[in-house]
Amino acid sequence: MSRVAYVNGQYLPFHAAGVHVEDRGFQFADGVYEVVYFHHGRLIDEAGHLDRLERSLRELAIAEPMSRRALQAVMHETIRRNVIASGILYIQITRGVARRDHPFPEGVAPGIVMTVRRVKPTSAATIAAGVAVISTPDIRWKRCDIKSVSLLPNVMSKQAAKQAGAYEAWMVDERGFVTEGSSTNAWIVTAAGELITREVSSSILNGITRMALIELARQAGVTVVERPFTVAEALAAKEAFLSSTTSYVLPVTRIDGQPVGDGKPGPLSLRLRQSYESTVVQRVSA
Amino acid sequence: MSRVAYVNGQYLPFHAAGVHVEDRGFQFADGVYEVVYFHHGRLIDEAGHLDRLERSLRELAIAEPMSRRALQAVMHETIRRNVIASGILYIQITRGVARRDHPFPEGVAPGIVMTVRRVKPTSAATIAAGVAVISTPDIRWKRCDIKSVSLLPNVMSKQAAKQAGAYEAWMVDERGFVTEGSSTNAWIVTAAGELITREVSSSILNGITRMALIELARQAGVTVVERPFTVAEALAAKEAFLSSTTSYVLPVTRIDGQPVGDGKPGPLSLRLRQSYESTVVQRVSA
Repeated sequence: MSRVAYVNGQYLPFHAAGVHVEDRGFQFADGVYEVVYFHHGRLIDEAGHLDRLERSLRELAIAEPMSRRALQAVMHETIRRNVIASGILYIQITRGVARRDHPFPEGVAPGIVMTVRRVKPTSAATIAAGVAVISTPDIRWKRCDIKSVSLLPNVMSKQAAKQAGAYEAWMVDERGFVTEGSSTNAWIVTAAGELITREVSSSILNGITRMALIELARQAGVTVVERPFTVAEALAAKEAFLSSTTSYVLPVTRIDGQPVGDGKPGPLSLRLRQSYESTVVQRVSA
Repeated sequence: MSRVAYVNGQYLPFHAAGVHVEDRGFQFADGVYEVVYFHHGRLIDEAGHLDRLERSLRELAIAEPMSRRALQAVMHETIRRNVIASGILYIQITRGVARRDHPFPEGVAPGIVMTVRRVKPTSAATIAAGVAVISTPDIRWKRCDIKSVSLLPNVMSKQAAKQAGAYEAWMVDERGFVTEGSSTNAWIVTAAGELITREVSSSILNGITRMALIELARQAGVTVVERPFTVAEALAAKEAFLSSTTSYVLPVTRIDGQPVGDGKPGPLSLRLRQSYESTVVQRVSA
């Protein structure tokens, strides 16, 4: 059974899903995106992702291609046509197709693409072992709060991690503080048991899973402090982990080749992963 | 007569020139480009543009899609098929099409697109009046030496300039120095008659026209100093101008609404423009 993509009003066979070479997403990275996890046809944190998508569009003054309700209908129809029970929905909206010129074109409709695919769940072995991260200078632009497709530095960081045998790269700002991973948020648990993750600013993307985890931790009586931390602080921490839409919560057990704590996944990391998984299951069966 | 685009081995009608939605240029800004001016079928500074294109590819570890000789053949054939005497050739090379995942995909051929179009020469009135620029914080990433399609901050700056009624935005780094324009290099002429433009580093793109102008100025006995300058210094300068492949040399007569010098195009700016135009004509007739 073949995959289907939604492209500018049409449901197309995946292999035929194309955009014009003068789509501004292709020539200028002038577009935004979201990746939404779905399970048994239910989109997880759908409203959160749509809120963020609309915010990204507003920040760049890209028009919404359709109402939220219409967008949701297309999202669900794209999933339905792909006949996949669980996976991820990728949505990209660009400023549209126009003769190449830097300023915003006038009278041009935004472009929209949706694709769907299966994702392998993280293996129990990976969760049990935790993952390694490397640290790397954060060379990105100063509007990382916008979920734009201007992802070249993220690509370069992730490739550096892969080459070092690591799962992710934690990017470090000029003052020595971790901003976030190339596609995940970064967390530590201090000796005092406080959960630390960087505060929201233009230096990070406010993860939808990040927000859910803060809420879950607080509900469980954990003190959450949103502030920057250094790599040294992370290495000296009791636990470290990363979070994202597709990885949920993954314990980080090594940074730059050095063990975090005792080098094993920490109890709070694993508890938060379980809590998050439970909420996903609850929302699907609700 | 209709336009033709070259896309991954095929010459296509312009309207049908598309790339797959999973082209990494579209989803990750994972690609580079060049804009080359041509006049009567001759590409201006062809070798300089190809050198820079190859450097950009090397810096990102994107494979060259074909040999330089083959690329040149396609460039000239694309121009020939468009039957345009003078205009610009746009070349974009991306890391290719692959299932969406940040690290570099393996075994994937790079993607290549070329388009051609006419450009209106800058009007004599514009040259005589000079253009206005605004200053804006440089929020770009830290590898501006790579001519990547990760151009969203440049788009935003150019739009800000347009909204302010200006031609260009000069981006200012955290220390208060002008880096460059959103698609042009920035220059001033001091009271002592020295020509100043920012030195090459990862903070600017080394313009092909920039390099040609430094050479021409030195040949004319002008002292060229490659160093950063502030907006205040530019406002107090005798002359200011910008340079690029398509605008050649354009006098800058206003910055943030304030006049530069006496508010009129300066003699060195105009002389350099003439010299550069002469070299273009010479190379075409050579």
